[in-house]
Amino acid sequence: MIKEECGLFGVENQPDAARLTYFGLYAQQHRGQESAGIVTWDGARMYDHRAMGLVHNVFEENHLNNTLRGGTAIGHVRSIASASSARNVQPFMVRHLDKMIAVAHNGSLVNANSLRRRMEADGAIFQSDSDSEIFLHLMVRNMRSMDAEDAIIEACKAVRGAYSLLILVDGMVMAVRDPHGIRPLSLGRLNGSFVLASETCAFDLLEAEYIRSLGPGELLIIENGAIRSRALGQDAPTRQCIFELVYFARPDSTIFDENVYMCRKAMGRLLAEEAPADADFVMPFPDSGVYCAVGYAQASGLPYEHALIRNHYVGRTFIQPTQGMREFSVRVKHNPVREVINGKRIVIVDDSIVRGTTMRTRVQKLRELGAREVHCRISCPPVRHPCFYGVDFANPSELMAANHLLESICGMLELDSLHFLSREGLLKAVKKPDAYCLACFDGNYCVPPSA
Amino acid sequence: MIKEECGLFGVENQPDAARLTYFGLYAQQHRGQESAGIVTWDGARMYDHRAMGLVHNVFEENHLNNTLRGGTAIGHVRSIASASSARNVQPFMVRHLDKMIAVAHNGSLVNANSLRRRMEADGAIFQSDSDSEIFLHLMVRNMRSMDAEDAIIEACKAVRGAYSLLILVDGMVMAVRDPHGIRPLSLGRLNGSFVLASETCAFDLLEAEYIRSLGPGELLIIENGAIRSRALGQDAPTRQCIFELVYFARPDSTIFDENVYMCRKAMGRLLAEEAPADADFVMPFPDSGVYCAVGYAQASGLPYEHALIRNHYVGRTFIQPTQGMREFSVRVKHNPVREVINGKRIVIVDDSIVRGTTMRTRVQKLRELGAREVHCRISCPPVRHPCFYGVDFANPSELMAANHLLESICGMLELDSLHFLSREGLLKAVKKPDAYCLACFDGNYCVPPSA
Amino acid sequence: MIKEECGLFGVENQPDAARLTYFGLYAQQHRGQESAGIVTWDGARMYDHRAMGLVHNVFEENHLNNTLRGGTAIGHVRSIASASSARNVQPFMVRHLDKMIAVAHNGSLVNANSLRRRMEADGAIFQSDSDSEIFLHLMVRNMRSMDAEDAIIEACKAVRGAYSLLILVDGMVMAVRDPHGIRPLSLGRLNGSFVLASETCAFDLLEAEYIRSLGPGELLIIENGAIRSRALGQDAPTRQCIFELVYFARPDSTIFDENVYMCRKAMGRLLAEEAPADADFVMPFPDSGVYCAVGYAQASGLPYEHALIRNHYVGRTFIQPTQGMREFSVRVKHNPVREVINGKRIVIVDDSIVRGTTMRTRVQKLRELGAREVHCRISCPPVRHPCFYGVDFANPSELMAANHLLESICGMLELDSLHFLSREGLLKAVKKPDAYCLACFDGNYCVPPSA
Amino acid sequence: MIKEECGLFGVENQPDAARLTYFGLYAQQHRGQESAGIVTWDGARMYDHRAMGLVHNVFEENHLNNTLRGGTAIGHVRSIASASSARNVQPFMVRHLDKMIAVAHNGSLVNANSLRRRMEADGAIFQSDSDSEIFLHLMVRNMRSMDAEDAIIEACKAVRGAYSLLILVDGMVMAVRDPHGIRPLSLGRLNGSFVLASETCAFDLLEAEYIRSLGPGELLIIENGAIRSRALGQDAPTRQCIFELVYFARPDSTIFDENVYMCRKAMGRLLAEEAPADADFVMPFPDSGVYCAVGYAQASGLPYEHALIRNHYVGRTFIQPTQGMREFSVRVKHNPVREVINGKRIVIVDDSIVRGTTMRTRVQKLRELGAREVHCRISCPPVRHPCFYGVDFANPSELMAANHLLESICGMLELDSLHFLSREGLLKAVKKPDAYCLACFDGNYCVPPSA
Repeated sequence: MIKEECGLFGVENQPDAARLTYFGLYAQQHRGQESAGIVTWDGARMYDHRAMGLVHNVFEENHLNNTLRGGTAIGHVRSIASASSARNVQPFMVRHLDKMIAVAHNGSLVNANSLRRRMEADGAIFQSDSDSEIFLHLMVRNMRSMDAEDAIIEACKAVRGAYSLLILVDGMVMAVRDPHGIRPLSLGRLNGSFVLASETCAFDLLEAEYIRSLGPGELLIIENGAIRSRALGQDAPTRQCIFELVYFARPDSTIFDENVYMCRKAMGRLLAEEAPADADFVMPFPDSGVYCAVGYAQASGLPYEHALIRNHYVGRTFIQPTQGMREFSVRVKHNPVREVINGKRIVIVDDSIVRGTTMRTRVQKLRELGAREVHCRISCPPVRHPCFYGVDFANPSELMAANHLLESICGMLELDSLHFLSREGLLKAVKKPDAYCLACFDGNYCVPPSA
Repeated sequence: MIKEECGLFGVENQPDAARLTYFGLYAQQHRGQESAGIVTWDGARMYDHRAMGLVHNVFEENHLNNTLRGGTAIGHVRSIASASSARNVQPFMVRHLDKMIAVAHNGSLVNANSLRRRMEADGAIFQSDSDSEIFLHLMVRNMRSMDAEDAIIEACKAVRGAYSLLILVDGMVMAVRDPHGIRPLSLGRLNGSFVLASETCAFDLLEAEYIRSLGPGELLIIENGAIRSRALGQDAPTRQCIFELVYFARPDSTIFDENVYMCRKAMGRLLAEEAPADADFVMPFPDSGVYCAVGYAQASGLPYEHALIRNHYVGRTFIQPTQGMREFSVRVKHNPVREVINGKRIVIVDDSIVRGTTMRTRVQKLRELGAREVHCRISCPPVRHPCFYGVDFANPSELMAANHLLESICGMLELDSLHFLSREGLLKAVKKPDAYCLACFDGNYCVPPSA
Repeated sequence: MIKEECGLFGVENQPDAARLTYFGLYAQQHRGQESAGIVTWDGARMYDHRAMGLVHNVFEENHLNNTLRGGTAIGHVRSIASASSARNVQPFMVRHLDKMIAVAHNGSLVNANSLRRRMEADGAIFQSDSDSEIFLHLMVRNMRSMDAEDAIIEACKAVRGAYSLLILVDGMVMAVRDPHGIRPLSLGRLNGSFVLASETCAFDLLEAEYIRSLGPGELLIIENGAIRSRALGQDAPTRQCIFELVYFARPDSTIFDENVYMCRKAMGRLLAEEAPADADFVMPFPDSGVYCAVGYAQASGLPYEHALIRNHYVGRTFIQPTQGMREFSVRVKHNPVREVINGKRIVIVDDSIVRGTTMRTRVQKLRELGAREVHCRISCPPVRHPCFYGVDFANPSELMAANHLLESICGMLELDSLHFLSREGLLKAVKKPDAYCLACFDGNYCVPPSA
Repeated sequence: MIKEECGLFGVENQPDAARLTYFGLYAQQHRGQESAGIVTWDGARMYDHRAMGLVHNVFEENHLNNTLRGGTAIGHVRSIASASSARNVQPFMVRHLDKMIAVAHNGSLVNANSLRRRMEADGAIFQSDSDSEIFLHLMVRNMRSMDAEDAIIEACKAVRGAYSLLILVDGMVMAVRDPHGIRPLSLGRLNGSFVLASETCAFDLLEAEYIRSLGPGELLIIENGAIRSRALGQDAPTRQCIFELVYFARPDSTIFDENVYMCRKAMGRLLAEEAPADADFVMPFPDSGVYCAVGYAQASGLPYEHALIRNHYVGRTFIQPTQGMREFSVRVKHNPVREVINGKRIVIVDDSIVRGTTMRTRVQKLRELGAREVHCRISCPPVRHPCFYGVDFANPSELMAANHLLESICGMLELDSLHFLSREGLLKAVKKPDAYCLACFDGNYCVPPSA
């Protein structure tokens, strides 16, 4: 399972800010299912609520009506990153001298450990195991001699890695994307106020209007309903995470000023061009491949079938299956339809092969149901390198593509053919091919991980 | 929202019976989300657990390991029917003299009230508001003078309406379909034992083998690993609920010996033949129309798009939206992709129009996003009559098709064209066109509702 | 542990009836800690809520404000009797033909099994394992041919044993005590309405005025704020449970028109007369002996000490103690004070010795702390016979006094002397010595248990 | 309601340390009902669990068996002090560089705010609102240049006020009492290991042996089963909180090397000498006056009665009473027995009068029940001054004795006579009259509150 770490949402100067943030996070739940939190500001002080769990479990009416007062709010959903513990749930909030400061962070730093040890040696006490608390300590220290804006710009000089940040301090919401722009962050407008979100699907749910993506290295300040923009002042090539387009982001979102659905459909079209198949139909394998499969079907002229049926009631935890129930966790979510499969030559489309075990189980099932040929098409190159900027792929030793030749993989998965979209193909599916990080495919890291 | 009332599962003489039943219900959760229950028999006594909630909330490991002992079990999931109350959760179980009896029922009786009042006048006390408890009282009374098999056959003579039943008594599992066979019930085999389920998707999850559908008016007895079959002895034409194929059943299920996916695809093909459209693409509207849309796309040659994006984290309850959030409950579940919609002529495919409000909201949204034309195709005739056999359509006065002409509907929904699959078209999509109940379309009731 | 089975409360025609009943049960929580329930009537229909647990856990504001509507209510708290299960929680409520009937019962019937089997053979279905449901079935059957009042009088002719009942039907509250008056039930007045309770401590909490105890064999009907009284018409000697005075009832209650505190103090005085001791002080052992110890101290002139300290935070369930923690469950509740005990000759006063194990552990602890002599005085004769009317003593084979001579007990408990209050002494402590059941002491049963 | 802030327990080098600590806290639950926490050390790392709630609600078997590993533990129960919030629940634990440190604190500092601001100005970030976190920051800073022992001695030089501390660091348990010894802390032995507790009732439950009270200004280090002692090196007169003996501590505890029961009985004896009464009996009013009332009864020769009956099932939260229920929260806990009160001249004994409202309600009730005379005796002088060392009396403006003359109080409470034990009388009840803080009575503060 590939894991994204976080989703962000912020709103300044708008009635019912906590509730808007709630729905902004709700729409971005796919970016983090482990915990959720909201911090609000009512002009005088901050209020917070956060806990482990899904957005709709963490918050109750009472929190939105009574606890989380005020017209300015930032929120955060998180998937696993640092240890899974209540003390790591963001946004982090602190009262320091007479100020309150809150920070929400999407991304991962490469020099977190060394920064942390240096500050600890100087007497600092960290409460969480999270990278993100480092921003809080840096800001607090910087603010001894400068204002909050400069303090965050200075803090960004100390850290290295991927960060989209929302910071609530002095009644302002500050939003930052790191100099490479690795993680997304977009600006919108709602009823005359400004809103911020990792993905625009949050704007759609709120019926907010999308304005633009923040730029890499941009610090945007929202204060009293007005925005202004400053540069972090660090020169760096743009390197947006292309895996957001391939897999993480919701297909109805626009991120990096690209529509995700259209990108994925283009990947499917390019796959069909690179690797046509003599088959009876195309099917997604499973749901995340739908948009790519639609593109493949249209480009190839093969019929589209939706022959893996999803059980919509599958929760996150399971009762233990009975002894004989093989590959239960794969089968419980999706069940292929024998009548569609039987006797057919099939193209299956997915977005990645990580460990390969799930794919293998599913292909075997197709064979059992009578599939004559199974051709697999993947909408990106093989993942061969770890990500240090916030994506939790499996351990490199477990990544199938990092350890096996294409031919071996094809055999191990019992496929009749296998094709990964080429690096060039993938880049044709986006508007600005130079502006993306492809380190997980090519190991070419824009921020050296050993830093 | 159209509601089916129930799903059934049973297993005789197999280790871990409660756990198998748990998963059998889990796979059929779509047939009833309000409550779940399991009764087991260990050769000496019965054990039960049932509660309001989804299967995975109602049961914990402890129930499966410790509470629900024995190798024979029946289970039930229920949607609303009688009042929503814990006392109506099935299977019903009773200890009577030295016997224990449990009953699970899918369907609805038309003479429940008169039977109930007659028995109450005779001193009987009912604990629930449910039709289904009537079977228990009839059996108990009949068993004063006959054995359990004859008692159930006799009970079935007294009741009129739709019933698929599982009864656990004297260590036997008895399964019954009413003489018209209105509700489904299928027989399978698992590790040398027999299993029963409303839909075969339950067999797939357990890797059980599908044997056949029970016949209308069949009483099947499973005892000590063997089956035998008796007839209820009531002569009646077969009238299976066609709405199971149109809407309720999972597309990967086989019911009434028909594969649901293939039926729905055929409906789409027949729709394309009856009502072609000059359009840019076809899309399901929303998910339940996927298989029909696939059929329409293939038959019409139009591209298939999947342009309404589902939020997979939407739970069953919501925090109240903010003031300005119009049509929130529609929008939160599905978000259309502007980049796919804008400037296009679209065919949308769904399985029914009930009140029409949701459809209207969604069509308006397509217009807002720039759709040039919107053509709607529905995979069955207009629903104009109530169902007395276990389907909970809206109140007749609220059924759009029962109260408006086709042209008016087209206008009210702001569609460019609208077509419902004809009665003849629908019957072409199934194997035995004479064996179905179409009362919700034509008002032709096989069991008079006034009985 | 000796267990009483139940407490009752009822109120007719008074605003906020559910809330008054809640507090009426709350004050009588000592009469039953396992479950609680309330049924109300609003002139048109009944409402109910009941569950396993203490009163303050079972009911929430929402139940009192919204669920339990109307001005008439009956409530019930229960300790173990029949199997511990949600289906046995009272009051039982049933809708039958066009009536709703609810019944709450304190006591135990001796012919419950035979009545039940007879009705089951006639086709009746019982939902609970409880004696008390029998009243419901008898009433329903009788009401086919008579009104509710006659139906309950007739039902009382069929049953044998102990019963104080509250019945809610046709807008009336009916209250009954069995012909022997075994269990208590009192009438009070609150703001012009009538209230009923097992013990008057419920009236004190509500600031209701105590009127009188119901008579044995009395049927009291409260309707529209008026009361009238009928006789069950069964001739029988009064045999009130004297163990209510010795142990169960709260000392601030009046039951059987006797104040419990004053009775217990008299028992202490009579003990001091029957069995003086040459000692340094008297102490209760533990709390339930306080009032008797006060009486003993006053009559004997010995100082009163309160030297077993109770931990007020001990809940009903425990974390498992560590290995070496001997007799943990005894010690965790009460801790003796070494400085008071050391070097002293002590009279300990309690209300009963059941198995003797707890007493023995505590006496040993006194020895460890340096007590020179320990003299035990018990406020009633030895319990040697089971109760069939609603008290759950230990199994006869476990009752220490039923199996050992006084001298042996004294030795086994490592006491310097032991005295049980004599039968004659006990009867001197009450006003009407002829009106009590002493079967647990003398085996003289007013209703033969084999019936 | 007077509130103590905290109770402590620690154990070093003993199997099942978490479970022992659980029971050590359980026995001291009266010292803090708001939150509970335990930190353990297994030789390699620390584990913690803490939450709002009572000890038996906060911890489950799973925490004791799996979460809280290791043979060394410290625990804490807390009542309100700083804001009621999960982030203030102790013990505080932090990982700092390669060390883990945990601190539990009973008491209150007078210079907490200034210390905190100074450290914040230096860049420190505090997570809680609690005084106690200051120790953690001081230690971490000191440990940059010294070992843990010196670091705590140095930290104690910076803080001023009341503190009994348990610190877990480097595998050692360190215990400290402030130079005045304001709060208690005792040392015991259990199976060859050392244990620490605020009160010895914790030792009794564990069957640990009491060794001695820690001295004021003593730092005791337990390491590898051995103890050694160092002095904080601050010269100061001993000023132990006498209110611990009057009210807080359990009567079965020994603190400050005094047995609490015997102290309270002596207070009652001295009260009887200072203020005899011509009355019919003495009663505690309510439970906390039991031991003093026993002493008064013995010294005066008046009979002891226990005539306020406690409802043992009263929980911490209530359903809202009905309109007419006056003084509900007072009455629900204790109900006086009319038959004992009526026509009598009564001496009531309590340990304090704070606001006087509860006392007045109860006295009025006695009058209603027919008491002829009511004489009140209080076991300490009037509380007229706030406590800055960890006792939460009411606001000074609400303290009845701080604002009214004795005669007025007697009138306002409708008493026939009222006497507070004199300062001299109170000091006669303890062994070392010079070693106590009486600031709440006389305003004589050993640590100036303005510091």
